[in-house]
Amino acid sequence: ATIATLPGDGIGPEVMVETLRVLSAIGSKYGHDFTTTESLIGGIAIDETGNPLPDETIKTCEEADAILLAAVGGPKWSDPTSDVRPEQGLLKIRQHFGLFANLRPVKTYPALASHVPLRADLIEGVDILFVRELTGGIYFGQRKEMGDSDEAYDTMLYSRPEVERLAHVAFRAAQGRRNKVTSVDKANVLASMRLWRKTVVQVAEDYEDVELEHLLVDACTMHLLTRPSSFDVIMAGNMFGDILSDEASVLAGSLGMLPSASLGAGRFGMYEPVHGSAPDIAGQGKANPIGMLLSLAMLLRYSLELEEEARAIETAIDDVLADGLRTPDIASKGEAVCSTTEFVDAVLAKLA
Amino acid sequence: ATIATLPGDGIGPEVMVETLRVLSAIGSKYGHDFTTTESLIGGIAIDETGNPLPDETIKTCEEADAILLAAVGGPKWSDPTSDVRPEQGLLKIRQHFGLFANLRPVKTYPALASHVPLRADLIEGVDILFVRELTGGIYFGQRKEMGDSDEAYDTMLYSRPEVERLAHVAFRAAQGRRNKVTSVDKANVLASMRLWRKTVVQVAEDYEDVELEHLLVDACTMHLLTRPSSFDVIMAGNMFGDILSDEASVLAGSLGMLPSASLGAGRFGMYEPVHGSAPDIAGQGKANPIGMLLSLAMLLRYSLELEEEARAIETAIDDVLADGLRTPDIASKGEAVCSTTEFVDAVLAKLA
Ligand SMILES: CC(C)[C@H](C(=O)O)[C@@H](O)C(=O)O
Ligand SMILES: CC(C)[C@H](C(=O)O)[C@@H](O)C(=O)O
Repeated sequence: ATIATLPGDGIGPEVMVETLRVLSAIGSKYGHDFTTTESLIGGIAIDETGNPLPDETIKTCEEADAILLAAVGGPKWSDPTSDVRPEQGLLKIRQHFGLFANLRPVKTYPALASHVPLRADLIEGVDILFVRELTGGIYFGQRKEMGDSDEAYDTMLYSRPEVERLAHVAFRAAQGRRNKVTSVDKANVLASMRLWRKTVVQVAEDYEDVELEHLLVDACTMHLLTRPSSFDVIMAGNMFGDILSDEASVLAGSLGMLPSASLGAGRFGMYEPVHGSAPDIAGQGKANPIGMLLSLAMLLRYSLELEEEARAIETAIDDVLADGLRTPDIASKGEAVCSTTEFVDAVLAKLA
Repeated sequence: ATIATLPGDGIGPEVMVETLRVLSAIGSKYGHDFTTTESLIGGIAIDETGNPLPDETIKTCEEADAILLAAVGGPKWSDPTSDVRPEQGLLKIRQHFGLFANLRPVKTYPALASHVPLRADLIEGVDILFVRELTGGIYFGQRKEMGDSDEAYDTMLYSRPEVERLAHVAFRAAQGRRNKVTSVDKANVLASMRLWRKTVVQVAEDYEDVELEHLLVDACTMHLLTRPSSFDVIMAGNMFGDILSDEASVLAGSLGMLPSASLGAGRFGMYEPVHGSAPDIAGQGKANPIGMLLSLAMLLRYSLELEEEARAIETAIDDVLADGLRTPDIASKGEAVCSTTEFVDAVLAKLA
């Protein structure tokens, strides 16, 4: 199988290098031949080509079975009002490959409870899968920039098929989990969200074994904090999913823990940690590689159907955490910290 | 002064009755002649007139100096896809009176710490003022309902003057507080939010004594949980303000604690608690009157310029809480609870 890697900016390259060590260990152990390519995206792509997603990168990704992306962005390119921005590369690649379903699992780790702003009794057993719509909604609707005028707008548009295909992903995922879907909308105000709710209700008829709950997005922000362990699968539009999954990420103790998968109709997908490029700690060996390693595990599971291999990585990480290894973001006061490389060394030792 | 009261649905009427007792006590004590009128809004207005905001109600409100609203909505009218909905009354009245600035203060109360899902050490000294845009953005942009088609959309439109006038409210409020404004947007994705950021940056030039911070909405959901006490004034668009102020409401321990003011260009305003109509506890004397009482205090302060009277109510509430009186929503396990009326009796005793 061929994996297109996109290291990107900041800590991206260093977590990518470490993750590819694990990929090659998995290859040797289970007898797979993984080919990897490397291409430009984000700020470094702007610097080298003027384009946050060069055609060359798209071509290389098209020839691969899956994309592994680390992180894009940084202060150098961070003016959100400039014409060319690293994030555009991210939005374009999602759209180009039709990656409409963004899966973001959020779990709590008992060992990291002191890093979670919530009371310890509330976060026991939290295990949420966000299913976020990724190629529609207000991210991709018609827009008008301010320019010389005094107005600007964006359009939150959803079509029934867009919501249907996402709902099927959410309900099927729930069937493999705890049989519950929470659909988030703002149907009391927005027309697009009334379409959203009607469509979800219809799709739900195909899944009688799955409980369906509706929450308004404003209420959901509260419920995520007061009853986080009651959620199983949460499905939401592009913007609400962005907001809610970020809010829920604090439950895991560190953004550095969280992986994501962006899937389309087939097995092809893009996998990336939820954390950003963290330019403030780039090059210092401080980055937490777990989000990226878990993204690789998701890649193996979803795009390559290598469930056993995926689990091997996940178990190795759990074991290394149980042994007490901590990168700085997840170390408690006074606890010894390890470097990105040391953490991955320990994961490799578990896999060996 | 004339105050138009809109009791609405669920617990609305009972918290309104209790609040008017406090209003009349303030009138006697400070020698003011308050006239109150009562009109229909929300579900009860739909039942009695078919219209969630009857013309009669608008007329009565137009003749008043301020509006005091309790709560609208309930299961009876809760199908978000039906044509006539209680919330429409709320949206229409905001728009009709040009109430573009929604002020939502969120404070933590040490005595209620056990009701807050966050760790006690994090919420010390939290004192945030949300300034939410209330008559623009995606709530009021052009929309298309699904109808028989397969698509629906909403438009998030902002104009420079809309953002300017809100920013002035936010910066002026910050000058009377801790001199910091956090402006929330999604400028890395949305054109309307790039206009937002540019405009806020320009307005900030008039307020050199106020520190300005920008946060993306997704990041803000995390910062509200990891560093809540670092915020002073948070300004946001209609939808982001709705979402973030609801998230932050958990910091106060109960939705029942929170007031709001919706202001326009002049002194006229609408005041309402943040909580909903809570139909499950309606008529049982369980409702927390604090959000409504604090809304009355805001009315006295902003619309009637009666600062001393406003403070008298706020101080009385603090004193009653210090005495240990608790409605069910804010009682700890095993603690004695009081009724809505008992709580207000105690407030009246403090005022006497
Ligand atoms: C960088 C940004 C465009 C992106 C988004 O909003 O989708 C990010 O926040 C994410 O969630 O992947
Ligand atoms: C009821 C609803 C329309 C309203 C809103 O979204 O503005 C409410 O959530 C609020 O915040 O006042």
